Amino acid sequence: MKVNEMKASEIQDMSKAYNLHSWSVQGPLKPKVMAKAEGVCFWDGDGKKYFDMSSQLVNLNIGHGNQKVIEAIKDQAEKLAFASPAFALDVRSLLAKRIIDMAPSNMGKVFFTLGGADANENAIKIARLFTGRNKIMSRYRSYHGATYGAANLTGEPRKYACEPGIPGFVKFFDPYVYRAPIDFETEEAATAYYIGQLREQIIYEGRNSVAAIFMESITGSNGVIIPPKGYMKGVRDLCDEFGIMMVCDEVMTGWGRTGKCFGVNNFDVEPDIITFAKGITCGYVPLGGTIVSKAIAKHFDDHFLSCGLTYSAHPIGCAAGLATLDVYEEGKLFDNANAMGAILGDLLETLKSKHACVGDVRYIGLFSAVELVKDKATKEALVPYDGDPDKLMPKINGMLSERGFSTYTHENCIIVAPPLIINEAELKEAMAIMDDVLTIVDETML
Amino acid sequence: MKVNEMKASEIQDMSKAYNLHSWSVQGPLKPKVMAKAEGVCFWDGDGKKYFDMSSQLVNLNIGHGNQKVIEAIKDQAEKLAFASPAFALDVRSLLAKRIIDMAPSNMGKVFFTLGGADANENAIKIARLFTGRNKIMSRYRSYHGATYGAANLTGEPRKYACEPGIPGFVKFFDPYVYRAPIDFETEEAATAYYIGQLREQIIYEGRNSVAAIFMESITGSNGVIIPPKGYMKGVRDLCDEFGIMMVCDEVMTGWGRTGKCFGVNNFDVEPDIITFAKGITCGYVPLGGTIVSKAIAKHFDDHFLSCGLTYSAHPIGCAAGLATLDVYEEGKLFDNANAMGAILGDLLETLKSKHACVGDVRYIGLFSAVELVKDKATKEALVPYDGDPDKLMPKINGMLSERGFSTYTHENCIIVAPPLIINEAELKEAMAIMDDVLTIVDETML
Ligand SMILES: Cc1ncc(COP(=O)(O)O)c(C=O)c1O
Ligand SMILES: Cc1ncc(COP(=O)(O)O)c(C=O)c1O
Repeated sequence: MKVNEMKASEIQDMSKAYNLHSWSVQGPLKPKVMAKAEGVCFWDGDGKKYFDMSSQLVNLNIGHGNQKVIEAIKDQAEKLAFASPAFALDVRSLLAKRIIDMAPSNMGKVFFTLGGADANENAIKIARLFTGRNKIMSRYRSYHGATYGAANLTGEPRKYACEPGIPGFVKFFDPYVYRAPIDFETEEAATAYYIGQLREQIIYEGRNSVAAIFMESITGSNGVIIPPKGYMKGVRDLCDEFGIMMVCDEVMTGWGRTGKCFGVNNFDVEPDIITFAKGITCGYVPLGGTIVSKAIAKHFDDHFLSCGLTYSAHPIGCAAGLATLDVYEEGKLFDNANAMGAILGDLLETLKSKHACVGDVRYIGLFSAVELVKDKATKEALVPYDGDPDKLMPKINGMLSERGFSTYTHENCIIVAPPLIINEAELKEAMAIMDDVLTIVDETML
Repeated sequence: MKVNEMKASEIQDMSKAYNLHSWSVQGPLKPKVMAKAEGVCFWDGDGKKYFDMSSQLVNLNIGHGNQKVIEAIKDQAEKLAFASPAFALDVRSLLAKRIIDMAPSNMGKVFFTLGGADANENAIKIARLFTGRNKIMSRYRSYHGATYGAANLTGEPRKYACEPGIPGFVKFFDPYVYRAPIDFETEEAATAYYIGQLREQIIYEGRNSVAAIFMESITGSNGVIIPPKGYMKGVRDLCDEFGIMMVCDEVMTGWGRTGKCFGVNNFDVEPDIITFAKGITCGYVPLGGTIVSKAIAKHFDDHFLSCGLTYSAHPIGCAAGLATLDVYEEGKLFDNANAMGAILGDLLETLKSKHACVGDVRYIGLFSAVELVKDKATKEALVPYDGDPDKLMPKINGMLSERGFSTYTHENCIIVAPPLIINEAELKEAMAIMDDVLTIVDETML
């Protein structure tokens, strides 16, 4: 059988027979065929249309089928598809410079990887090599990738397969204020509590032991958890006090998702290391990377950088990255994320007031989550942590999908993060589907 | 500045200013510009031509600028550049099936990754999940990648940056017969010794404790070390005896490099898991993967596969993979690797007899290494392990490069592994350069 000659059912059967699929029990899977995709929509094997309301895995910021990026891929493939990482290439040099120009002013150099997990892997190594320290702190309710190092950063069930863990990886609690053990009067009070706890934990781990603190600048997969006022600054101060590298994982939040270039730009803080992937090419070609401060970059002028991978700084990836940054700029997409984000925020607040099943909505730019509860007053989650015996969340996701709203869920949250190119009409049409489904949830699942 | 408008010196300066380069002290680097590449050659920023005698990082099996693969990339970019791993796509299904058809008969399904390191990361997780055991054995003098899990498999200095290591990773010695502690009369005697040692080590680690034994089927970067007769079968028998998954890392040896599809095909053995990358797309687009046996695949029909990455089974990667397999088949490139490999073997034996500095030559297909010594009789290495105070190996590599022979060295070995499309005239022209340089080594460095 050949490409372009297969029926959807054949593609699906062959996929079930030969492909292992991520994060799944394989037996029950019925992998949907994606037959066509354009802008904020895609079509399945039966010709049914969906709004891509999670930008696939929150990576497709520019939407499907962007011709400028496609042309850049084609041009670079013709010109030079591959050169080992040791070579200097125009696209490699230009993309690194352009990223540094867009990054916080303290940033110096970029190490390119293939995705988010290996961006974090290299950040761990770089922080340890630079500080000469061993311990790495990161947070519960975080996702940083599925390779050993990245999974040991991760603070949710997807890390279990990489345990027993790597010595020296320490977890702390994130400021998930909606479910905090204390009812804080103000955001500042929450910040004071969490920063105080973190400071104590650092001291008990050893003042001179911690190489890095990793954080998603805004927790993504685990429910779009936005830090309270002053929190990021508080972490920055602790890092300065104890000589710790502050690492912001911007894999999901980077490149305009939150309405700014990086999520951390919302908090007026400069980290020491930024990791990125997804939005840099929107997944048109795999690319990720680790941005390091000028101070760290300088250190490696006369110290060995013990990092490397065959496809580091892939030429077609770098070309796609440059074109993607052009698309952001020419389309003023970060501005559109803010404008549409404001509308999305209003729509989400309306859903929250209207539906008994909506406990909380959290949103910034075009990055948001709807947290479902059995009871608004007690905040009891619609499904218990790390367990969903009645498969309620897959059912809800299925109802959304049937109606043409494609996204994914995590624990008791529905992620809403459409491409940054979405317009008001599309946003409203899609969110009306969500409204309908939440009505069914109110009526049948509480 | 823009692509196509930059001078080589500008590209180089910008690269030094903004790119972090793999496995290097950054200060002294002068990254060469690759301006053009075609077939078995490339040209630098000054228009100087080189034979690519390492196929870049032993990945470019089909050589530079293959039009069939380029067209496949362009077509898929136009058709569908990205779909999340959950979707079934023609190219994903077809490539998985095609790989299973080429793999040993016991193989069942493929999990696609981006490169070699994450192929091994997923193999570790899969072996542990499948066996319910924890320990992972691998060999000294091996390279399996630079992320935490892969680096903990690795048995050479590039692993140090990922230590303290992950609990349960255990190393054993490989059959490096040229430098073995015992002078074996026959290959069989060497095999008996190493398999005996390994068996004892497994028992002392705990008969029911070891999930997997990882091996490059032929050790690559660490000097093309070919196992003695019966060794691979011996490991297979131990794995059967103790219920251990035999994992062959075919990242470098896969896809015709050794004259067979996989390196392990040279030894009439079927492993439980095969990891691959490099030659599947030759690096035109990043792609790697983990092939699992039918038994393992079946296990995950009703067990959770705790593996995943945003760009798993990338559409353009899969399309490039399919085209690459076509190129191998249509060009009969595995056969050419055997034919040219025989010529290369003769040339290497001639170098060994002629040059005082050549202690050993090892070759299979178009995969070979020249091991340099101070003294043929004592076998004293030209440079000590993990140290080369006088930078002799970079000097030798520099002399080769100046004369148009591009490759890389590792410890006291020079890697020779040209694209599988090389012809006899090209091979002889390039190896004459090696001959000249070895004469200088004989005269000036011993
Ligand atoms: C915040 C964050 N970090 C890292 C990753 C891992 O990226 P990848 O899937 O490309 O390995 C993800 C993926 O979703 C992510 O959301
Ligand atoms: C045998 C082997 N395994 C794994 C790897 C790692 O592959 P990658 O550089 O794509 O991560 C390599 C790279 O050279 C290799 O030679």
